[in-house]
Amino acid sequence: MKPGPRNLITDVAGLRVGNASDPDLKSGTTVLTADAPFVASVSVQGGAPGTRETDLLAPDKSAPGVDALVLSGGSAFGLGAAEGVMAALRAAGRGFAVFSARVPIVPAAILFDLLNGGAKDWDESPYPALGRAAFDVAGTEFQIGTAGAGTGAQTARFKGGLGSASVVLDSGATVGALVAVNPMGCAVTPSGKHFWAAPFEMDGEFGGLGPDPVPGFRPLPPSRKVEAMARQGNTTIGIVATDAALDKAQAQRLAVAAHDGLARALVPSHSPHDGDLVFAAATGARRLEDPASELLQLGHAGAVAMSRAIARALWEATPSDGDTLPTFRQSLGQ
Amino acid sequence: MKPGPRNLITDVAGLRVGNASDPDLKSGTTVLTADAPFVASVSVQGGAPGTRETDLLAPDKSAPGVDALVLSGGSAFGLGAAEGVMAALRAAGRGFAVFSARVPIVPAAILFDLLNGGAKDWDESPYPALGRAAFDVAGTEFQIGTAGAGTGAQTARFKGGLGSASVVLDSGATVGALVAVNPMGCAVTPSGKHFWAAPFEMDGEFGGLGPDPVPGFRPLPPSRKVEAMARQGNTTIGIVATDAALDKAQAQRLAVAAHDGLARALVPSHSPHDGDLVFAAATGARRLEDPASELLQLGHAGAVAMSRAIARALWEATPSDGDTLPTFRQSLGQ
Repeated sequence: MKPGPRNLITDVAGLRVGNASDPDLKSGTTVLTADAPFVASVSVQGGAPGTRETDLLAPDKSAPGVDALVLSGGSAFGLGAAEGVMAALRAAGRGFAVFSARVPIVPAAILFDLLNGGAKDWDESPYPALGRAAFDVAGTEFQIGTAGAGTGAQTARFKGGLGSASVVLDSGATVGALVAVNPMGCAVTPSGKHFWAAPFEMDGEFGGLGPDPVPGFRPLPPSRKVEAMARQGNTTIGIVATDAALDKAQAQRLAVAAHDGLARALVPSHSPHDGDLVFAAATGARRLEDPASELLQLGHAGAVAMSRAIARALWEATPSDGDTLPTFRQSLGQ
Repeated sequence: MKPGPRNLITDVAGLRVGNASDPDLKSGTTVLTADAPFVASVSVQGGAPGTRETDLLAPDKSAPGVDALVLSGGSAFGLGAAEGVMAALRAAGRGFAVFSARVPIVPAAILFDLLNGGAKDWDESPYPALGRAAFDVAGTEFQIGTAGAGTGAQTARFKGGLGSASVVLDSGATVGALVAVNPMGCAVTPSGKHFWAAPFEMDGEFGGLGPDPVPGFRPLPPSRKVEAMARQGNTTIGIVATDAALDKAQAQRLAVAAHDGLARALVPSHSPHDGDLVFAAATGARRLEDPASELLQLGHAGAVAMSRAIARALWEATPSDGDTLPTFRQSLGQ
């Protein structure tokens, strides 16, 4: 296992990611798409999800593929970002064909960033336009940190953000993760100097700070986020993607496994106040030679990539005017 | 947060646990029960579960409580352990009342230990008798390590076992975990000298070995278990219990949160070849003053207790004749 050339989810060939954000709003949207529909499923494990078009991702539901996946800030208003993405897909003649009609399939998930210091006094929802803008700039290179759906994200003690990472397996398959990190919990151990994800770091991609050497259990420090706003309103939303040819049921198992990456990188996670959710996407370019063994490896890689993507989100976050929380690197004096 | 007086799930007042095992069979059964029915739910996250009476644990299903929970070796044969427990409950006049009839409600989950070197050539299933024997000895003290459902359990590199741990929260609520550890993955980091669960250890309860100091990602060593038997046939099955008054939906969220304890203590976990499952049980003695906040704390405590219980299972495992894998302490030269 090693990172792909970009260390981004777009190391999975054919995938493109676009971000759009509004610094005054302190929010934004991230869109993952491809030139052709791709297989997708989802695992919703948090207690407070906000979603759209997730029911059709169950393995027993008929939709064979999706045209894009949306991660957005804006709480339930952010689900409107899918409108903009659907409009762009419609203009391009894309979508599920029902005779001459085309219906773009765009599952979406949101995080809560309505109390993060941004200007939330809009009259018309900004999210459809953010969704369309993110779709329009989608490419193989994109910014992580304070970008897209992670623009206004926060963790318990530090600014959150958008993260991504990738893994190339010995088999040649690629697995990538993309995540907007806005949990109740913290990505950093109680000392405030080490990432929980440290045992999975590759090539110093989030500072090479190593594991926290302090032995044994320590209580979690008070949440600055809870002090600054309400306890409600968190969520880590992500996508794990691969070039392997998975069916929807296999994609769902990949999504379940990737939740382990959340659990290891964020403490606590999957709380009643988190809407933690992972989409899985499979482009289908690589046929599985040994499905039983390879799905296990893909799941492990997905969890590892997800943990790393979460730590990278915080590591790459940058300060903005009006922030209510510092970035992790600010706290280290960097 | 601190461990309860026994550091066992029976620190939750009213709960009793019993083990039964057969050393030649290299298998056994563990039963958790109480003097009165208790609220229970479940979260099944592995790809290869083996279960009985789990559907009635969904929050929308009517059954208000259960009489016992069973963890057993024996793969699907081990589900028969519930027969023995039901017989004992029936003899005691226990069970869900339908007019004059009493139906004991005994959800059960199993792990695969059919290829662990034990004598599996029985003609009549030994599990109903193991279930009844475990029920009959249930008390507040019970053995962990090579005991009960963990008797024949194995991890990727070391002997598995039965583990338990408890937490007393600042609120006074108690949370306990009980787990039979038989995963595809490993509880020990690639160096073979440190538990993944180290950041959650209390009072040197699993050797005080501390976190693995090696920075960054390392590939998982080959699985001795896969070399010794098939890839299929794993599973970590556990129970998280509390004295808090949870309804079934809240208990289900506790079970989901406790899966994070599996993810942190076992790498990989929740694979297609694991039937990873956590029951949640709530005795109801303590009313929640602030449900939104307390359920979060209970879930975090449940995850912490589950990670610790997993490491304790390996730490307390003892060698037996005919073992195909060493214990972790044997590998340390202890």
